[in-house]
Amino acid sequence: MSFVLARRAERMNPSVIREILKVTEKPGIVSLAGGLPAPESFPVEAMRAACERVLRDTPREALQYAASEGFGPLREWVAAEMGAQGLACDASQVLITTGSQQGLDLVGKVLIDAGSGVAVERPTYLGALQAFAPYEPEVISVEGDDDGPLPEALDAARGARFVYLLPNFQNPSGRCMSAARRLVLADKALAMGLPVVEDNPYGELWFDAAPPPPLSARAPGNSIYLGSFSKVLAPGLRLGYVVAPEAIFSKLLQAKQAADLHTPGFNQRVVHEVIRDGFLRDHVPTVRARYKAQRDAMRTALEHHLPAGCRWQVPAGGMFFWVELPEGMDATALLPKAVDNGMAYVPGAAFFADHAKANTLRLSFVTVPPDDIARGVALLAKTLKEHA
Amino acid sequence: MSFVLARRAERMNPSVIREILKVTEKPGIVSLAGGLPAPESFPVEAMRAACERVLRDTPREALQYAASEGFGPLREWVAAEMGAQGLACDASQVLITTGSQQGLDLVGKVLIDAGSGVAVERPTYLGALQAFAPYEPEVISVEGDDDGPLPEALDAARGARFVYLLPNFQNPSGRCMSAARRLVLADKALAMGLPVVEDNPYGELWFDAAPPPPLSARAPGNSIYLGSFSKVLAPGLRLGYVVAPEAIFSKLLQAKQAADLHTPGFNQRVVHEVIRDGFLRDHVPTVRARYKAQRDAMRTALEHHLPAGCRWQVPAGGMFFWVELPEGMDATALLPKAVDNGMAYVPGAAFFADHAKANTLRLSFVTVPPDDIARGVALLAKTLKEHA
Repeated sequence: MSFVLARRAERMNPSVIREILKVTEKPGIVSLAGGLPAPESFPVEAMRAACERVLRDTPREALQYAASEGFGPLREWVAAEMGAQGLACDASQVLITTGSQQGLDLVGKVLIDAGSGVAVERPTYLGALQAFAPYEPEVISVEGDDDGPLPEALDAARGARFVYLLPNFQNPSGRCMSAARRLVLADKALAMGLPVVEDNPYGELWFDAAPPPPLSARAPGNSIYLGSFSKVLAPGLRLGYVVAPEAIFSKLLQAKQAADLHTPGFNQRVVHEVIRDGFLRDHVPTVRARYKAQRDAMRTALEHHLPAGCRWQVPAGGMFFWVELPEGMDATALLPKAVDNGMAYVPGAAFFADHAKANTLRLSFVTVPPDDIARGVALLAKTLKEHA
Repeated sequence: MSFVLARRAERMNPSVIREILKVTEKPGIVSLAGGLPAPESFPVEAMRAACERVLRDTPREALQYAASEGFGPLREWVAAEMGAQGLACDASQVLITTGSQQGLDLVGKVLIDAGSGVAVERPTYLGALQAFAPYEPEVISVEGDDDGPLPEALDAARGARFVYLLPNFQNPSGRCMSAARRLVLADKALAMGLPVVEDNPYGELWFDAAPPPPLSARAPGNSIYLGSFSKVLAPGLRLGYVVAPEAIFSKLLQAKQAADLHTPGFNQRVVHEVIRDGFLRDHVPTVRARYKAQRDAMRTALEHHLPAGCRWQVPAGGMFFWVELPEGMDATALLPKAVDNGMAYVPGAAFFADHAKANTLRLSFVTVPPDDIARGVALLAKTLKEHA
């Protein structure tokens, strides 16, 4: 073959989760691995009506090339929504992206040189590691506790291009960062001259109380904020957004234009049509209620089935339980045995940039209904007991 | 500001065309600048019916996360279509992208290191230059004639990572590469160990006869082929595809996954629903007929109005006339005067990687109707005469 690959292509690898998902497509497997939203929660009828209206009222605009920044009224909606959450911003700072995964790619493209430091939580979102990897950063893992990354651990990130934080119901750990920790981290990062990239796909999926305001609200000029419609509407539309200070916005916009010209205008208009009159105010609580019931089902199942020595926090929102097995157990090695027993999870090792904790795993409680959750956890417990 | 930009961000610049389009949004300007397809050609009713069917029959699948490769039946459709055009391939070699612009970005990401040679035509598609620029290539321009790049000029590309070619009704020149030139170039590139990246957004927009088979058909193992639904259906859906040899496909797929996980599944299913039963067989000829009439209107207007010393080829398809003004005239300097007179074009300089021909400009004949084409060309002629 005459093709010569770029050096960065060596950093690209098939997603571990993706490979696992292939295995778990076998019929009869209870998969607690994927982070797929419950399809029962997709607002199909609202989507249908919105498609109808967009194609009736503005078909030519919706199907034509459009501005790279995104659809104006949707940008306005995002700016208003961010303001309501405590992050005052102007619509001119909002860039609509093809899912928030694209936001991560654009951030990497604009901010990471080969060898640049990039700080992440320990563990962190696998998709972010994958988005950043082609830009060849030196990844620095920041230690944390149940409140989030430790402020003193942030010293390890000195000189990094940014620290990537997922404050709300983090994927994979489920942890929600406390208000106090947010303020301390935002202030310390600002003092260090360390920009914050804040990712918030799960913030709306709270069960008892809304999470504290974004870190970005504390130091907007030092922050890039990423949001998504994937978890409150549907991921198949691929709609996310980035909020950035003016100076960095222009570079993100140029990177966006080079990457795909613009996010599909049709999708932007349909989603704006769905949400413009307050649809999410009624819809999101139904998603929260569904996920809370499934979270409870998983908590009950874990308490009932898992052997002594396993530990987990009960997440107050989001989609995941993070389970620590007794020291010495290896969740990656156990996975094929779990699949043989009829269930699947994601080994925690995938979520560590370095020094993976082999005895961790992630369970999703949103994709399968409560009965299957109980069955899946029972099969996990059986696997653990067989190989203790 | 604490943000430190990546070195590659210096290579990113606002699109010249984009800046021009902003100016030409002024009411009353006849813009022959943009490459926007005629909105009258968008199949709105077919789209409406397809959205209805997809949301009735497979709403959950269409709105859920989906495979990074793309929707299986759409990949099958593309593979069959490519086979009909002479490029035999398997659906497993087809990657669905968020517009073919994303295909260019992924190709750059996987194949270009800082300082790598990348060969392009002289002139070439501006969007490709923008997609490649962040990966910091050394761009090599290959000289050509009315049949395409000159085989002997390809020697300048020795050692480059690939040569980027746009054989059909090239943007901006309108030139269609002859069958003989395709074979010679494909063979020579193969012999040189120089991969070919073939971009074909306009191939279906032929007026009298279909263009010759793709270059990639001659040496599929040495070629990456990019296609698009933007010009035959509608650009606002952002649907394109890449066909690549197996070994390079896997890296493009990993880059795709990192870039946006997958192209919106809803859009893929809607487009497949529109085209599956042969819709394009009836629809595309109506687009061809419309554009041919508009091409004729522009030819007539150019012949009638433009002063002596201006030269152009009549394009046999696509969307653009490429006009050479008399030596010594500068189309970039003249643009503000043309806008003052009430019309706009794109200065040709934007399409050159180096040694721009200042006396060239691009006119689109697809966006505005024949009367406006005639008026716009008359205003261009007035501008040229005022500043001769």
